[in-house]
Amino acid sequence: MTKSPSEPGSDVTTTSRRKFMTSTLAGGMAMTGVGRASAQQKPGSAAVANPKNLPPNVPDWSKVLGDGVAAHPYGKPSKFEKHVVRRDVEWLTASRESSVNFTPLHELDGIITPNGLCFERHHGGAAEIKPLDYRLMIHGLVNKPLIFTLDDLKRFPRTNRIHFLECAANSGMEWRGAQLNGCQFTHGMVHNVMYTAVPLKALLEEAGVKPNGKWLLAEGADAAGMTRSIPLDKALNDCLIAFKMNGEALRTEQGYPVRLVVPGWEGNMWVKWLRRIEVGDQPWHTHEETSKYTSLMSDGRARRFSFIMDAKSVVTNPSPEAPLLAKGRNVLSGLAWSGRGKVTRVDVTMDGGRNWQEARIDGLVLDKSLTRFYVDFDWQGQELVIQSRAHDETGYVQPTKNELRKVRGVNNIYHNNGIQTWLVRSNGETENVEIS
Amino acid sequence: MTKSPSEPGSDVTTTSRRKFMTSTLAGGMAMTGVGRASAQQKPGSAAVANPKNLPPNVPDWSKVLGDGVAAHPYGKPSKFEKHVVRRDVEWLTASRESSVNFTPLHELDGIITPNGLCFERHHGGAAEIKPLDYRLMIHGLVNKPLIFTLDDLKRFPRTNRIHFLECAANSGMEWRGAQLNGCQFTHGMVHNVMYTAVPLKALLEEAGVKPNGKWLLAEGADAAGMTRSIPLDKALNDCLIAFKMNGEALRTEQGYPVRLVVPGWEGNMWVKWLRRIEVGDQPWHTHEETSKYTSLMSDGRARRFSFIMDAKSVVTNPSPEAPLLAKGRNVLSGLAWSGRGKVTRVDVTMDGGRNWQEARIDGLVLDKSLTRFYVDFDWQGQELVIQSRAHDETGYVQPTKNELRKVRGVNNIYHNNGIQTWLVRSNGETENVEIS
Repeated sequence: MTKSPSEPGSDVTTTSRRKFMTSTLAGGMAMTGVGRASAQQKPGSAAVANPKNLPPNVPDWSKVLGDGVAAHPYGKPSKFEKHVVRRDVEWLTASRESSVNFTPLHELDGIITPNGLCFERHHGGAAEIKPLDYRLMIHGLVNKPLIFTLDDLKRFPRTNRIHFLECAANSGMEWRGAQLNGCQFTHGMVHNVMYTAVPLKALLEEAGVKPNGKWLLAEGADAAGMTRSIPLDKALNDCLIAFKMNGEALRTEQGYPVRLVVPGWEGNMWVKWLRRIEVGDQPWHTHEETSKYTSLMSDGRARRFSFIMDAKSVVTNPSPEAPLLAKGRNVLSGLAWSGRGKVTRVDVTMDGGRNWQEARIDGLVLDKSLTRFYVDFDWQGQELVIQSRAHDETGYVQPTKNELRKVRGVNNIYHNNGIQTWLVRSNGETENVEIS
Repeated sequence: MTKSPSEPGSDVTTTSRRKFMTSTLAGGMAMTGVGRASAQQKPGSAAVANPKNLPPNVPDWSKVLGDGVAAHPYGKPSKFEKHVVRRDVEWLTASRESSVNFTPLHELDGIITPNGLCFERHHGGAAEIKPLDYRLMIHGLVNKPLIFTLDDLKRFPRTNRIHFLECAANSGMEWRGAQLNGCQFTHGMVHNVMYTAVPLKALLEEAGVKPNGKWLLAEGADAAGMTRSIPLDKALNDCLIAFKMNGEALRTEQGYPVRLVVPGWEGNMWVKWLRRIEVGDQPWHTHEETSKYTSLMSDGRARRFSFIMDAKSVVTNPSPEAPLLAKGRNVLSGLAWSGRGKVTRVDVTMDGGRNWQEARIDGLVLDKSLTRFYVDFDWQGQELVIQSRAHDETGYVQPTKNELRKVRGVNNIYHNNGIQTWLVRSNGETENVEIS
């Protein structure tokens, strides 16, 4: 049995159920002929439609002028979308400043995560850096130590890349079984945006890495002084110094004004508020790579420098916060990604693994990016046991949770890319479960 | 001489100049060696960096905890980015409800426009529609008239497409010469997002178009009752019924909960708050396609049904609101697009057309999408006369403004895709000019 992610203090589960019930009423009048829609309304209920607004009537909003253009110089979502927010799980972390919130994957579609909904994870709160005071220092085993202003960085040739960022602890609570009842909470520590950035290689070439330089230390300017060691090969291959996401400046909580992008590798390495890159001949073994972000194995040893995020997928709809609303035709939707390259195929089962079908991938299929998949299906109210399984271009196939546990044990919270199972009951309600 | 876009009442030009001056100070210490940066600061000026925050000092933001994760469940930009907003031109339109504001192209990069910065254009304000009361009616020359709820629409197979939307009047003030001093105002009625949508074809097949059905009327539910006639062939080919942009629900001002997407065609046809599609055997000649959105030619006749947005480009940086800040290496950046398909090449001149070079296109090159280009160059303070010229996959080449005027005259405001010229003075200030 799964726990409510919001115990104590929040109403996530309650909200989901209430939404399910009211939405089912609305779903009951699916695609009616002209003139029949209003007959199936339930007047008097705030949750259902107002018959006065339905055809053949002229709705209220056609009779009045709406907001003019200056109302929101920086726009915000519709007031009817207030439930679409990042949410946290209060009992999961001890403080607000060293905490996490989650992307509402079940409310999104396509592959772009809007900036306002990209999950946050920081260890000392989101640093607020004055852009004119921002500096990036490159030093250590280099011929010419350098300090860059933000403007300096913007003088190097730029590139634009769409990449997913996944926290190493995403799905971490699920190692010990189905824990959190909602894909926002089980899988919501991932987002996918287009970065505008300078290749780190260009800056390292400017500084001139000495022959014995093999590793970098990336350090953040936040109160936590976040530090990670990164192999030089990776840095030269595809790491980016990013200053824009989805076209605009990085958000504060994503490292404004500059963050490191380490495509396909665990999110904590994508150092935010990047202030310093030191070149050295070996890794630093900082506390972020010893006491944290290591995986304790069953035999007592710890798995370290587990950089790559292996191929993974999740069905976002239906899911516990987004139940099935009505019988008939339905769209199953989900996301797949791989830190090793492109997703090549996603399989979906609706009967707990007896039968699998290849999902329809739609939209862009990009290297180390979220990839959207769909299964269009007809539902007659039968119970469904839904799973998805991602394949990537290296031939890697997403494992089951039990297969992962056999290799890694259950003593850690990182790198759980096991297959997720949702149980859809005959009334459409959906639950996080595990099947053996 | 160009007019300030903000006369009277706003401070756009003033802000740009002030920004230019302060940024130049900051630019003066470009890429200094370690330990030398702070020496070139101007202490005491609020506009320049605070030496106490510069290396080797530990900056203020490394000493305090930042905002925790619950501060902004729906995130917003950094407080240092408050100048990055949609802006309007007060003297351009008579009322706030029938008006327009402009995307700040010079502040953006990559090809995705963040939802909060997508320009707005509406004729009766932004309608506020209750999603449960939303209905889309399809009727006229069909076998089975239908009314769809929002939930009904989400049951059809979905697709994800990135497309630009450009208002037919974008650059319209420039027909009579250089008018508005900033690319936000000359070219900012364009945006580019990923839509999640149902192909209109699927809904029309459900309704069954009769053999004599050749045109559609698309009608909005706003106070203006926006209506446009669309050829059936286009509707079946690539039109979309969109309910998400960049992953989340459409914004109110972009037609929440549902808008029509008409790839490559003029923006006013992308009917927002879509309530009705009627199938007929000929166009309707609504006032939006007779008194508006037609081009008065020099001989007194009017050009109508000018659907396609021809290939166009603009250099966004440098531009009047984003001057060059310092000599040495610089990045010229711009956008190109075509309503006929993919952009295949962009040429750039910096000497008013004597020499052209092929720009570096970076990032995704997609059908009927904004495309990002760059020229990395060294600037030694010489005056520059900058232009860009887009080519598309049909072989079409963006014309000069004078070439356009010869064919279309100067009596209209629509479909100005002529080549834009920026003059960069030796101090970096940049101006909208025309050269013959």
